[in-house]
Amino acid sequence: MAGARLSLTGTNLSRPFTSPARSAYLRRTIVSGVAQNLSYWDSIHSDIDSHLKKAIPIREPISVFEPMHHLTFAAPKTTASALCVAACELVGGNREDAIVAASAIHLMHAAIYTHDHLMLTNSLQSDPETEPKISHKFGPNVELLTGDGILPFGFELLARSMDPAGDNSDDILKVIIEITRAVGSQGMVAGQDSDVEFDQLSSQTRRCLHGCGAACGAILGGGSHDEIERLRRYGSIAGKIQGLLNEMDRNEGGKGQLAEKWRALALEELEYFDSKRIEQISTLVRA
Amino acid sequence: MAGARLSLTGTNLSRPFTSPARSAYLRRTIVSGVAQNLSYWDSIHSDIDSHLKKAIPIREPISVFEPMHHLTFAAPKTTASALCVAACELVGGNREDAIVAASAIHLMHAAIYTHDHLMLTNSLQSDPETEPKISHKFGPNVELLTGDGILPFGFELLARSMDPAGDNSDDILKVIIEITRAVGSQGMVAGQDSDVEFDQLSSQTRRCLHGCGAACGAILGGGSHDEIERLRRYGSIAGKIQGLLNEMDRNEGGKGQLAEKWRALALEELEYFDSKRIEQISTLVRA
Repeated sequence: MAGARLSLTGTNLSRPFTSPARSAYLRRTIVSGVAQNLSYWDSIHSDIDSHLKKAIPIREPISVFEPMHHLTFAAPKTTASALCVAACELVGGNREDAIVAASAIHLMHAAIYTHDHLMLTNSLQSDPETEPKISHKFGPNVELLTGDGILPFGFELLARSMDPAGDNSDDILKVIIEITRAVGSQGMVAGQDSDVEFDQLSSQTRRCLHGCGAACGAILGGGSHDEIERLRRYGSIAGKIQGLLNEMDRNEGGKGQLAEKWRALALEELEYFDSKRIEQISTLVRA
Repeated sequence: MAGARLSLTGTNLSRPFTSPARSAYLRRTIVSGVAQNLSYWDSIHSDIDSHLKKAIPIREPISVFEPMHHLTFAAPKTTASALCVAACELVGGNREDAIVAASAIHLMHAAIYTHDHLMLTNSLQSDPETEPKISHKFGPNVELLTGDGILPFGFELLARSMDPAGDNSDDILKVIIEITRAVGSQGMVAGQDSDVEFDQLSSQTRRCLHGCGAACGAILGGGSHDEIERLRRYGSIAGKIQGLLNEMDRNEGGKGQLAEKWRALALEELEYFDSKRIEQISTLVRA
């Protein structure tokens, strides 16, 4: 369930969802969206994967690194990481400038996902009839502690990526602050502001990670203050649209129109940039 | 139980523990140790508390900040934070140079403690007859997510403590790397190296935090490479002695002699420093 919520990479989010058969329609649209722009987002995810595979090899002690490796890649890919790379490229940066931050964002997301998954174990135990089947390769203690290890490891990767000459240390610190805010108290507060129940906070935090990812990419690509803020808003709206579309499976209502409105707002932020450069990043919300 | 393991601030750890009545003796020694050097360690903890109270006020949204505040202070004080301040002062730094890092270390410890506590809920549910009673002010979902928020908040405090002129940014990055390693994969690996079961890893991580705390304090106080490394070893051994003494309640054996040997090794590291300056910090392991 959580997996489905998070696997909307390259999704076509533009059409209004007013038909009652939203669920099937959403699935078709996702497939179509992915097909339309497979190579750009897939190439980003593939680069993030390669970086993470090098950063977390399965090595001794196996009992630590196997769960860490497994749980990092068991979490579905998140567009929050991909947005980090896309935003960096949009403002004229190189992909390698953003790949560590994008990997760190995936690790934050994986830690949160792992702990969400852990909570689903408990639900499963309390009512095996109604709860979905969730497979767990490791026990809850391993999931809890590995999640606790994955999160600081993301910050470690970032801190270690500082240039020995210190040229990028200001940007790295800015990125660390961005990410700590998104996954720390600020992400939780953002969740509360929008009347979300405490147990839905982690999905709110994941949405915050989208604005954060885009802002981090723009910082690392050398974007101006305006570029950073516009991309932050673009990412935040893209994250909100994803959240909305996921909820639409469960709650019927006038959310199709809302998604459409948000899509227009998101695209408005991109008007600030050279129209030739926004083609790739805009596919995240565009048909 | 976990509380008792972590409340050895200012403990007298020097005497051999060979008597069978170790538990009562340990309690007496702790009280005596605290009384001997109450003011120094207590003044450090009081300064860390003040800093944290300002950093995490109970404010709106109450549903986020009340658990965050409560769980931060529900965790027993840790000598890992206090060592950070003491090491900074030993190498000639000012207390305020280390107080943010010491607070961040307390937050790491509080996040780990909160999640340990959460696991004890599960044990309690599975066997209410044999497990100790653990009081929980909040439900497991709140404890899980608040712990996940407290940890990055510690890194946020650190990143934000960077001087606007950038004079201390290198030191802050070094400290972030130290802490991420201690609570991330390296702390877990250290646990594995010493044949610890996976579910005891969090206590290993807490011990790693002691070496880390002392090293961070020395970095922030402007210590030399040698001073940093000696204080790291001193802190690590002090953490190991604490772990050993806590285990001695449960496992009888020749551990009193081992504690004595480690105490001598710890004090050896301090011989490198001016004997007049080590008086306060050495009380952590000395009679």
